[in-house]
Amino acid sequence: MKLARYGAPGHEKPGLIDGDGRLRDLSGVVPDLTGDVLGNTGLRRLAAIDPASLPLVEGEPRYGAPVSGIGKMLCVGMNYADHAAETGAPVPEQPVLFMKATTAIGGPNDTVVIPRGSVKTDWEVELGVIIGDVTREVSVEQALEHVAGYAVINDLSERAFQLEHGGQWVKGKSCDTFGPIGPWLVTRDEVPEPQDLSLWLEVNGHRYQSGNTRTMVFGVAALVSYISRYMTLMPGDVISTGTPAGVGLGLKPPTYLKPGDVIELGIDGLGRQRQQVVAHPSDRS
Amino acid sequence: MKLARYGAPGHEKPGLIDGDGRLRDLSGVVPDLTGDVLGNTGLRRLAAIDPASLPLVEGEPRYGAPVSGIGKMLCVGMNYADHAAETGAPVPEQPVLFMKATTAIGGPNDTVVIPRGSVKTDWEVELGVIIGDVTREVSVEQALEHVAGYAVINDLSERAFQLEHGGQWVKGKSCDTFGPIGPWLVTRDEVPEPQDLSLWLEVNGHRYQSGNTRTMVFGVAALVSYISRYMTLMPGDVISTGTPAGVGLGLKPPTYLKPGDVIELGIDGLGRQRQQVVAHPSDRS
Repeated sequence: MKLARYGAPGHEKPGLIDGDGRLRDLSGVVPDLTGDVLGNTGLRRLAAIDPASLPLVEGEPRYGAPVSGIGKMLCVGMNYADHAAETGAPVPEQPVLFMKATTAIGGPNDTVVIPRGSVKTDWEVELGVIIGDVTREVSVEQALEHVAGYAVINDLSERAFQLEHGGQWVKGKSCDTFGPIGPWLVTRDEVPEPQDLSLWLEVNGHRYQSGNTRTMVFGVAALVSYISRYMTLMPGDVISTGTPAGVGLGLKPPTYLKPGDVIELGIDGLGRQRQQVVAHPSDRS
Repeated sequence: MKLARYGAPGHEKPGLIDGDGRLRDLSGVVPDLTGDVLGNTGLRRLAAIDPASLPLVEGEPRYGAPVSGIGKMLCVGMNYADHAAETGAPVPEQPVLFMKATTAIGGPNDTVVIPRGSVKTDWEVELGVIIGDVTREVSVEQALEHVAGYAVINDLSERAFQLEHGGQWVKGKSCDTFGPIGPWLVTRDEVPEPQDLSLWLEVNGHRYQSGNTRTMVFGVAALVSYISRYMTLMPGDVISTGTPAGVGLGLKPPTYLKPGDVIELGIDGLGRQRQQVVAHPSDRS
């Protein structure tokens, strides 16, 4: 299944993409796509629905993030060897974890606002993993049974805030609009091999990132298992699994986003995102 | 006002401590103490209630964290010069931010579980700040108007996970039971000077931490203002403002928590916490 949320920010309704790629209204079945409907039981219930029985959604509504009420968003750093190399970091021996504030989360095509005073706003296409059932100390072998599905994520990052403002990375990862997710949550039954997905990102039509999840240092099952040893993962929690090479920080010279830029990114089978980049209101002349 | 939540985990009801220190049931007024009732408007509404009109709560119920649905928990590192010195870190030039997973949050007297395989579980008494209204790029002068109130926090930390497992601190800060908050949210009108509060922590009756918020590197108003430049703070979000000297990591030799220990901590006017430390189920012999 491809599950989505559509409508104005803060007022999204749940939807489902049918076999013909048309958006249908799920709000008669579930009030919203929150973690509590994304477990194995909840997904079986949704899968039993005949999509043709659901109302078609007219027009071209905005998409929101495909999950509501995300409790935490964990990100994995340096999880592709080529990306670690371009940033000058060693390939990690254990997954590098950091968090992105949930206030950064938005829809796949929402505007990206360059933070006030920022000159180093950067892009990162990533495979997002959405947790379905409560996950605590799960083995690698059983980890994927706790995954509801997958989504495209742009892990936008302000490199000066992240690396030059003292301390931990969260400062550069948590700005408002820095977490587009979607357009869909694609359930895991439709992604039989999460370690063989091409992912790409372009700015103004120039392709900067072109990778494949097969080159991840730690795969999805290993990450879910690893993280679940440190904290309980709840239904609806999101793990962003790291980015391949080709971010602005790694270019020579480094290249960052500016107002007017258009970011497009996508992953095999998970759809694509398109973001217009705008200046912060205080920085607009 | 002193606001609290009481009852079994996940089933807490809202309450208010009256002038005689008795717990009264607020559930006839608000369904829960979520961020949306903690803004200036919501708190004025609660302040207008005659406590004597609320039912007394019988017995001695468990207290939960005094806020429900906390969207994010930001913590400040090295925010007391004496604590920075004991850990060998320089006094930061800008606030050091990291996040604690919201799944770590619990009640003030809930059991603390030493994570599986941990031998370096440590304590940190901290002044917690609970945001009342949406806070975005607020000035230092206006920052406190966005604060609903204050609470005691024990920012439990696994030092090996935090410092020896690669990458960012979140791994050592986010274990389940690592975020006791409470017993109360004390509204800011009852805390006219947040920069003159004594805070203390004892393990098994031995006092390890004894400090005062006047020696913070960055005060509450500065922190709220600073963080709000990087991300939007939402009603109910929590900032834990750092710990003074006396944590286990800083002792010679370092001293950590073990099953059977009892932690007690408190802050002037904000109440006290008491936690029994137990082994992880997998580590119990």
